[in-house]
Amino acid sequence: MTTTESHLLPNGQDLDTARAEAARAYELDRAHVFHSWSAQAQIKPMTIVASEGSYVWDGEGNKLLDFSSQLVFTNIGHQHPKVVAAIAEQAAKLCTIAPQHANAARSEAARLVAERTPGDLNRVFFTNGGADAVEHAVRMARLHTGRYKVLSRYRSYHGGTDTAVNLTGDPRRYPNDYASSGVVHFNGPFLYRSSFFAETEQQESERALDYLERLIQHEGADSIAAIILESVPGTAGIMVPPPGYMAGVREICDRHGIVFIADEVMAGFGRTGKWFAIQNFDVVPDLMTFAKGVTSGYVPLGGVAINDAIYSTFADRAYPGGLTYSGHPLACGAAVATINAMEDEGMVANAARIGEQVLGPGLRELASRHPSVGEVRGLGVFWALELVANQQTREPLAPYGGSSPAMNAVLAACKSGGLLPFANFNRIHAVPACNISDAEVAEGLAILDKALDVADGYVTG
Amino acid sequence: MTTTESHLLPNGQDLDTARAEAARAYELDRAHVFHSWSAQAQIKPMTIVASEGSYVWDGEGNKLLDFSSQLVFTNIGHQHPKVVAAIAEQAAKLCTIAPQHANAARSEAARLVAERTPGDLNRVFFTNGGADAVEHAVRMARLHTGRYKVLSRYRSYHGGTDTAVNLTGDPRRYPNDYASSGVVHFNGPFLYRSSFFAETEQQESERALDYLERLIQHEGADSIAAIILESVPGTAGIMVPPPGYMAGVREICDRHGIVFIADEVMAGFGRTGKWFAIQNFDVVPDLMTFAKGVTSGYVPLGGVAINDAIYSTFADRAYPGGLTYSGHPLACGAAVATINAMEDEGMVANAARIGEQVLGPGLRELASRHPSVGEVRGLGVFWALELVANQQTREPLAPYGGSSPAMNAVLAACKSGGLLPFANFNRIHAVPACNISDAEVAEGLAILDKALDVADGYVTG
Repeated sequence: MTTTESHLLPNGQDLDTARAEAARAYELDRAHVFHSWSAQAQIKPMTIVASEGSYVWDGEGNKLLDFSSQLVFTNIGHQHPKVVAAIAEQAAKLCTIAPQHANAARSEAARLVAERTPGDLNRVFFTNGGADAVEHAVRMARLHTGRYKVLSRYRSYHGGTDTAVNLTGDPRRYPNDYASSGVVHFNGPFLYRSSFFAETEQQESERALDYLERLIQHEGADSIAAIILESVPGTAGIMVPPPGYMAGVREICDRHGIVFIADEVMAGFGRTGKWFAIQNFDVVPDLMTFAKGVTSGYVPLGGVAINDAIYSTFADRAYPGGLTYSGHPLACGAAVATINAMEDEGMVANAARIGEQVLGPGLRELASRHPSVGEVRGLGVFWALELVANQQTREPLAPYGGSSPAMNAVLAACKSGGLLPFANFNRIHAVPACNISDAEVAEGLAILDKALDVADGYVTG
Repeated sequence: MTTTESHLLPNGQDLDTARAEAARAYELDRAHVFHSWSAQAQIKPMTIVASEGSYVWDGEGNKLLDFSSQLVFTNIGHQHPKVVAAIAEQAAKLCTIAPQHANAARSEAARLVAERTPGDLNRVFFTNGGADAVEHAVRMARLHTGRYKVLSRYRSYHGGTDTAVNLTGDPRRYPNDYASSGVVHFNGPFLYRSSFFAETEQQESERALDYLERLIQHEGADSIAAIILESVPGTAGIMVPPPGYMAGVREICDRHGIVFIADEVMAGFGRTGKWFAIQNFDVVPDLMTFAKGVTSGYVPLGGVAINDAIYSTFADRAYPGGLTYSGHPLACGAAVATINAMEDEGMVANAARIGEQVLGPGLRELASRHPSVGEVRGLGVFWALELVANQQTREPLAPYGGSSPAMNAVLAACKSGGLLPFANFNRIHAVPACNISDAEVAEGLAILDKALDVADGYVTG
C-alpha cells in the first residue's frame, strides 16, 4: 500500500482530518448501517475517504488503484470534474420534480440514451437502478405478450428485488426463491466449464442454442413472455457469448414471439468497448435495461430502453408501473454530463483499445506465467481471471458460491500491493474505468502479477 | 395563473429562454420519455422549468403554489439553499462508493435517522426509494420469522416493483396480480366509508381489530410473516387511524409473533407533524420503511429502519439482499442536510402547527360552506378533501379507481387559479411543504375555495 506522500487528499482534506473522519465513519457504520449481502456482525468495511480518476483512498490514507470500478459502475473514473460540476449546476437549477411532469434534464438524457441504443429502442423509462429496470422490463414483456414465464440463464445476476433476484442465476437467489416468480433457468454458453460437452466455441454456441430450443419446446413457447440475458454476463464471470449465440437467441425469440431483454446494467455504457455490449454481436433486443454506467453511479439512475412495438402496447393502454423518482432531474443531469464526457473524451474507444492492446494482452501474458490462472476472458475494460488449483482438472480456487483461504490470500495481496480488485468465488475481475491510462493498467498488472504468485502457492497440480 | 412579473425565474433564466427550453423539453419528452402509470400517447405532461420554496414554474412561466409537494416528497419545499449547497459540496468531495465500503455521509445519515426513529429501530438499510425499501422489509420479516404470507390493507400503496405493488391495496395492483406474492388484503379502519358498519371512531377501531384478528385465525397465524401498514395511508386517502387501532395491531402482532412493518414512505419525515407518523400513536413497529422526505426527493434515497431483534437475525447469517447504490454518499449527504435543515428550522413543529391552527381549520371552514366536500381529514401538512356528489349518500365525485368530468373540472380550476394539487379519484389532497407559511396556506385555501365552487356545480343532492 502506498500512503499518500503529500498531506492533502484530492478532496482537500489533510491526512489527520481524513483519518479522524474515517474513524468516526467506521464507528457509526458499525452502530447504525445495515450492509447489503452480509452477516452484519462479521464484516469490517473499508472506509473510503476520497477518490480521483482511477484511484480511491482508504481511511488510513492508503491510495488504491481501483480495478473494481466499485461495483463495476464508475466507468468514467472517480470525481470526473465535468460531471461533478454538472451535478452542482443541476442541483442549483432544479433538483427534483414528480415523474408525471416533464423537464429538460430528463428529456435530454432520454435523447442521448436513445441516440446510442441499437435499432428502434427509441423510448426510455427511467428507474432508480438496475433491479427495478429489470422488474419493469419483465412487466412490459408480460403485458405485451400476455404470457407470464421468463427464461433466464444460470450464472447471471439481474438485481436484488424479488422478481430480479429470482431471475438471477447465482446463489443469491436461493434464500429468496419461493418458486413463485415464473422463472425457468437454463444453461448458457461457457466453454471453459461447458454444460454441453463442447470442445470449440462453435460447438458451444450451437449446442447451447439447441438446448434452449428444446427447453422452449418442453416449457411451451406460448407460455414464455421473455428471455432475459446479460449481453455479457458480469458478476457471474464475464463469459463473452461465442459467435452466433446472441443472434441465435434473437432468431429463437422472433420465431416464438418471445421478447428478448438484454440486461446491460453492468455491461453497458462503454465497458465492452461499445456503448452497449450487445452491439458487439450486431443484435437488437426488444428491451434493454441499464444503470451503473449511465451516470457512472454518481447519482443513482437506471432505466429500460423500449422498442417501438412494445411502446405501442402502452400508447393507449396505461402502463401499470411507476416510481416517484422516474426520470429524476438531478440523476438525469448527471447522465447527460456523463454521456457527453464519455463522447467528448473518446472513452468508449479507449475502453476498446485498452482491451485489445493493453489489458487483454497483459492479462494473457500473466496467465502464460502463472499456473493458477485457468482462463483469461473478456473485452474492453471487462475481464475475468479464472483462478484454479489445477489447470488440468480446472478445479476452482474457491468453490462455486463460496470463498477460500487461497482466494482470501490473493485478495489480501492485491490490497496490500495497492490494488482494489473485484472478486467473486474463484475469480478476479479486472474492471477498471473506461478512461484508464496505459500506465495505470501497467501498474495494475504488476500488482496482479505479485498477487498471482500467492495464488500459485495454492496450485496442486 | 400568475405569469411571473419579473423576467427572471428563480433559476436565473429569463422567460424567453425558459419557454424555449420547455418547448424543447416537451418535444423530446414526447419523442423519448416513457412515463409512469400512463397511456403514453394520451398524456400531455406539464413541463416544470424552475422551483423555489412552495412554488414551481411551468413551461409558460406560470407560477404555481405547490400543494402537492410533487408526489408528496418535497417536505422542505423546493430548492432549499442549504440542501442545494450540501449536494454540491458532497459531489465535490465524494460522489459515490460501493455499498460494501463505509463512508462518512452514509454513517452520519444512518445516525440521524436512527436518532429519530422510535424504540429500538437502531439500524438502517438504505435503498434507492420506497418500493425497494418495502421489498427488503418484507424479505427481512420473512427470513426472521420463517413464514411467507404478508397481510396488507385495502386502500393502501406500497410501491411499484412486483412485491411492493402486490402488497398495494389499490387498482394499480390489478394488472400486476398473479396471485403469487403471498399477500392477503384486509379492510382497515375508514369511518367515512366503514367496512364494519360502524358509527363512531371507537366502534370502527374495535371492529377493524376484531376483523383483523378473525382473518389471522382463518389464515393461520403461524403462516403470517408480517403485517404492513402505512402509519397514515397516503395516496389511498389520508385516513388517520382511529385511537387504539395501531396499538391494537401492535398487540396482535406481538401475540402471534408477526412482524409489524410501518410504511412511512409518504407519511414520514415531518409530514404529520412528527418525525414519523407512527409517533402520533405511541407505537413502535419492528421495521419501518422510508423514502421521499428523507432527502425531500432532492436525491433518490429510501431505506428500512430495523429493530434489534431483526438485526440480530442477520448478525451472523448473511442478509440475502442488496443493491449497488445502498447508502449512496451523494444521497446520504442530501439526507444529512435535509434532516439538519428540518431540525434547525423547526419544520416538524411548523407542520404540526399548520395542521392544527391554519390548514386544518381552513379546510374545515371550506367544507362548512361547500356541499361538494364530504369529509376533511388529516393532520400536519397531510390533508384530504373527499369530494362527493351527495353528502347524504356520500356518492364520490369520481368512481373508485377512476376520474370524472367533475374532478377534471375541479383540477383545471385549481391549476388556472395558480395551485398545483395532488388528486386521486374523488379526492384532492392538500399536502404542501412542512415549512409552508401561513400566508401561503391562505393563498392555497382561497384558490381551493374557488375550485370547490366548480365542484359544487356537480352536486346532485
